Amino acid sequence: MKAARSSPLAAYLSMLRTGPALRTAYTHLFSRQPGVDRNVAERFRLQCRSSAFGGQTSGRVPGFVQANLVAVPQKHAFSFLRFCLANPRACPLLDVTAPGDPTPRTVAHTADLRTDLPKYWVWHDGAVADERQDVVDVWCDEMVGFLLGCSFSWEQALQEAHLPPRQIEENCNVPMFRTSLSNLPVQPFGGNLVVSMRPYLPSQLSAVAAITGRYPGAHGAPIHWGDPHEIGVCIEGDPDWGDRVSVRESEVPVFWACGVTPQEALREAQLPFAITHAPGHMFITDLVDNEILIPSLA
Amino acid sequence: MKAARSSPLAAYLSMLRTGPALRTAYTHLFSRQPGVDRNVAERFRLQCRSSAFGGQTSGRVPGFVQANLVAVPQKHAFSFLRFCLANPRACPLLDVTAPGDPTPRTVAHTADLRTDLPKYWVWHDGAVADERQDVVDVWCDEMVGFLLGCSFSWEQALQEAHLPPRQIEENCNVPMFRTSLSNLPVQPFGGNLVVSMRPYLPSQLSAVAAITGRYPGAHGAPIHWGDPHEIGVCIEGDPDWGDRVSVRESEVPVFWACGVTPQEALREAQLPFAITHAPGHMFITDLVDNEILIPSLA
Repeated sequence: MKAARSSPLAAYLSMLRTGPALRTAYTHLFSRQPGVDRNVAERFRLQCRSSAFGGQTSGRVPGFVQANLVAVPQKHAFSFLRFCLANPRACPLLDVTAPGDPTPRTVAHTADLRTDLPKYWVWHDGAVADERQDVVDVWCDEMVGFLLGCSFSWEQALQEAHLPPRQIEENCNVPMFRTSLSNLPVQPFGGNLVVSMRPYLPSQLSAVAAITGRYPGAHGAPIHWGDPHEIGVCIEGDPDWGDRVSVRESEVPVFWACGVTPQEALREAQLPFAITHAPGHMFITDLVDNEILIPSLA
Repeated sequence: MKAARSSPLAAYLSMLRTGPALRTAYTHLFSRQPGVDRNVAERFRLQCRSSAFGGQTSGRVPGFVQANLVAVPQKHAFSFLRFCLANPRACPLLDVTAPGDPTPRTVAHTADLRTDLPKYWVWHDGAVADERQDVVDVWCDEMVGFLLGCSFSWEQALQEAHLPPRQIEENCNVPMFRTSLSNLPVQPFGGNLVVSMRPYLPSQLSAVAAITGRYPGAHGAPIHWGDPHEIGVCIEGDPDWGDRVSVRESEVPVFWACGVTPQEALREAQLPFAITHAPGHMFITDLVDNEILIPSLA
């Protein structure tokens, strides 16, 4: 067994905390790959639109990029967009709609964000007030939709590399934990980073980090592995979201930034009104997973 | 001489034009490198603040990242930010301020964008109305400042690789041209891509593209080389901005997206009010050029 590389946590924290962190934003541009039948994504969305499907999307429409939805009134859209840019590991932007336009024209030009997810949460004053299968009647002209990448995009790649995520082996939801790490606040949005956890052997960490690091649009590489207490997490009890999974002899917990983070930011911001997907009930884009892959970094 | 690789233009156009272009946004996070004396950047900004310096910044404070400034009222900030994300080659984001805050906290936490550039343009209704050395009296509480990367960041690297940009050899300004390529519009911002041009031998193109491609925060790799008419440009006459440079036997013109592009977008948007740097009179950040370098792509 190779020795484990040290956790990337120090790099993550240094980026957040050593004086004003220096960063630049840029966008990776992708062309559609030829020969992909994208109708399957549209057909799935139409099933949601007609309420024929209202379940969780894990494992559905395999190969297509799934996305977290956050929709806020235009008044808060600039701040939320800056929050996403400041916290790209938790909030990797896939698309931002024009105010009032329910179609995410970059990632699914035939979709309607008001109907095409299987289940929504409607938020009032920072709390979930309603769960429903469409939001047509509450999506006002001023709403802006944000689609954020999701770790489903690389779980298939991990399986193909014989590194299956534990929750897939155990047929349950990935465990998620609220950490003690503050997000970079952009008023009124703040809150703490939420992470998902998958256990691996120390000898597997390099491969796991390299594979997932090629998907910055889907949270990218782990932000920490090893002692959970370093990020204020206890993995012995029940997770804050999702299900408990077994951690076997010699394995270490590996933590990735998670798309539940923006929901924590919404909670803290106490916006009068917002809309998100219901956890696990994601938006299916027209993108396929290897279209958001970046080249290996030398 | 190696055969020239074909121009990257087809890839650029396909990204823009083949159906809805697919893209994802993400941010590269950098920590300050230790041992860099950043006081020299601050001292230069203080010279601008006191109006002791009011000239062009090319070659000033070598090694530090220079940036284009665009400032618009908060009302237009969300649209302009989306425009930058949609057109990252022309508008690579280095920092976005909070509304009313004149300090770009990511790239220069002691700076004041109202005073620390050597020269500003004040725009009314899409036209330059005034040129001045500070904008304290017109920077209202609602202004949002955007700092966008600039090709100065990689010109030193080209020189060190014995690939000096021609305008440096000829001691003049880089020639810039308005192309026939539309930017991806985000209302009210649109306009055409503006490019800078540097001539190179076909055998040099691979190296030139590889070096500049590592600076996505500074326009990145060329968007075209070869026949200028393919992008609606004529290099025989005077450029639209900057100076004419000589193109020698066997050389081909190489074109990069240019930071004048957002000024064209401002012109087209006819905003009642906006502020930019005066061309060539850039903002000096606390970043050093190799802090915005990304790893080589394998």
